[in-house]
Amino acid sequence: MTRFQAPEPQSFDKVLSSMCTEPAPVARRAAEEFLATNPGDPGTFKSVAGLEQETISLLGDVVGLDDPQGYVTAGGTEANIQAVRAARNLADVSAPNIVAPESAHFSLQKAAELLDVELRRVETGADHRADPEAMAAVADAETVLIFCVAGSTEYGRVDPIPALAELADSVGARCHVDAAFGGFLLPFTDAEWHFGHAPIDSMTIDPHKVGRAAIPAGGFLARDDSVLDALAVETPYLESATQASLGGTRSGAGVASAHAALQVLWPEGYRAAFERNMDLATWVTGELESRGYPVSQPTLPLVTWVPESELFEALRAAGWKIARTRTGAIRLVIMPHVTKSMLESFLADVDQRRS
Amino acid sequence: MTRFQAPEPQSFDKVLSSMCTEPAPVARRAAEEFLATNPGDPGTFKSVAGLEQETISLLGDVVGLDDPQGYVTAGGTEANIQAVRAARNLADVSAPNIVAPESAHFSLQKAAELLDVELRRVETGADHRADPEAMAAVADAETVLIFCVAGSTEYGRVDPIPALAELADSVGARCHVDAAFGGFLLPFTDAEWHFGHAPIDSMTIDPHKVGRAAIPAGGFLARDDSVLDALAVETPYLESATQASLGGTRSGAGVASAHAALQVLWPEGYRAAFERNMDLATWVTGELESRGYPVSQPTLPLVTWVPESELFEALRAAGWKIARTRTGAIRLVIMPHVTKSMLESFLADVDQRRS
Repeated sequence: MTRFQAPEPQSFDKVLSSMCTEPAPVARRAAEEFLATNPGDPGTFKSVAGLEQETISLLGDVVGLDDPQGYVTAGGTEANIQAVRAARNLADVSAPNIVAPESAHFSLQKAAELLDVELRRVETGADHRADPEAMAAVADAETVLIFCVAGSTEYGRVDPIPALAELADSVGARCHVDAAFGGFLLPFTDAEWHFGHAPIDSMTIDPHKVGRAAIPAGGFLARDDSVLDALAVETPYLESATQASLGGTRSGAGVASAHAALQVLWPEGYRAAFERNMDLATWVTGELESRGYPVSQPTLPLVTWVPESELFEALRAAGWKIARTRTGAIRLVIMPHVTKSMLESFLADVDQRRS
Repeated sequence: MTRFQAPEPQSFDKVLSSMCTEPAPVARRAAEEFLATNPGDPGTFKSVAGLEQETISLLGDVVGLDDPQGYVTAGGTEANIQAVRAARNLADVSAPNIVAPESAHFSLQKAAELLDVELRRVETGADHRADPEAMAAVADAETVLIFCVAGSTEYGRVDPIPALAELADSVGARCHVDAAFGGFLLPFTDAEWHFGHAPIDSMTIDPHKVGRAAIPAGGFLARDDSVLDALAVETPYLESATQASLGGTRSGAGVASAHAALQVLWPEGYRAAFERNMDLATWVTGELESRGYPVSQPTLPLVTWVPESELFEALRAAGWKIARTRTGAIRLVIMPHVTKSMLESFLADVDQRRS
């Protein structure tokens, strides 16, 4: 066979702002083994379809839900779209809207545009968390979903979920929690964020981020099967009656690797990673503060700090894969591939390039 | 590390109705190498983002388009959704509808429901192809998209694309071709199906089916960048301004394997596979006819035939992974993993179990 040389895939040794990371070795092996399978066709690919059911059950343990409904999505965006879609389809209103903190992931704007639902984004309160009173002020009888974040993209913050679930109930809306980033971290904190803590309806949780599965492995979970029913379409030529997923053919690699990672890492492996990553986040926070930078105290392993205006570009030019918040702060996401020596090297570059 | 035993992934040796297949070896290697990369974040994962651009350019060669716009989707469903979304967003009508033959893939029903667009499905004409006159009869000023199929799921048929593109033009609608199945087969036929044959606007073409890439690797292609612009949302924290894809984090494995497969197999490898698979399809058609079964003459390597009413279940019980059309005919999709000895074994089971 013809030999084909692809460019090297980029290593993770300068990646500091991504929620993607190297999959766990067991997850990588499972992905490679199931690369050619399709859980979207369970009549043909039975074993991976079984793994998907077990994965959802394992995710139920993570999120405090006894009889979880759901499936493995292509990622957090699909799960967020499905939450909005289910809420829209289940409501009986003519001009549906959703109410969300401005800290919600941009996939929510995608979902709103796609589904033709009005998105009411509300300023966050102190500490970049959702403000239930401000959200209540814009919610109304046409609100179909209160959207909450458990581990925000920019600051790693957890919204006051019980208060937001209460708001949802008071306006007759559904309540969704986006725990794409926080889902594999928050079980080791005292945060109130999951199905066991508040009467939320659905959740996004991404094995392919902190869960260390291979891409694509997101998760959409629901408390009750009416949510999945609201998403189902008929599948005429598959030997299964309906399909609730947004995609048709789906990645067996993602499903099998999520299953393998959860089997091996939940809960102790994830706990150890959380503790390690929080220690590093706390340490780098101290280092940045000692240099005089304003830093938001990390509640999850995500450190957001305000650099001099030209420092960001200088660090990008030095090869650091970093990204900014909308206000120009730098986000350091302390994922498993981020080491202390990597952060030391980053800080050395900060020292060399700061004005 | 803890050892984890997953159940064996299913082999393909009894899979006869799936458009999925074993990826080409070069595509599998590329997928494994790029498993941890994310083309959805091109500022961080630069090399796989470069491969995606090259993949789109290679796909342009396949579909007769000089300067193709587009991206690698999670699959055909995402591409079909995006086609409808772009058409809806670009049109200025209050109650948009799309007109499609009843042979259109069920993902179109998903798209219509999701996007709140009316779907007008029209009976196909002779030989299961779209009927331009019947479609013209239901198209109107609110029609935003004429949807065509190049390689239908049930019969492998190619719609009269030039006539349908003309219809689209006459009502001021966009024209989309779903070549998810046919895209890597039709270049070796005299069918008129692509951007070079008719003024179509967009196309679905799936490397992870006949293109022998690893799942997930679909393709959405457009003639002009206004289509992509109509899908773009802002990406506040990525070092790229907008994102047109439906997903956020996407599979680098899918992109890299599509790139590798196209580099190595286009055009001669795909031509050889097409000829081999058509020969097998023709052979099995003769075998089925000699047993007295009604068979639709294959125009692509997909053989649809009408069994006795209980034979389907008997063959499923014997382990054959087969599926039916809406009218109960059995579809045999002759993919690269389907061999003559496998079909001989299948026919032996037919002979043993027929009434």
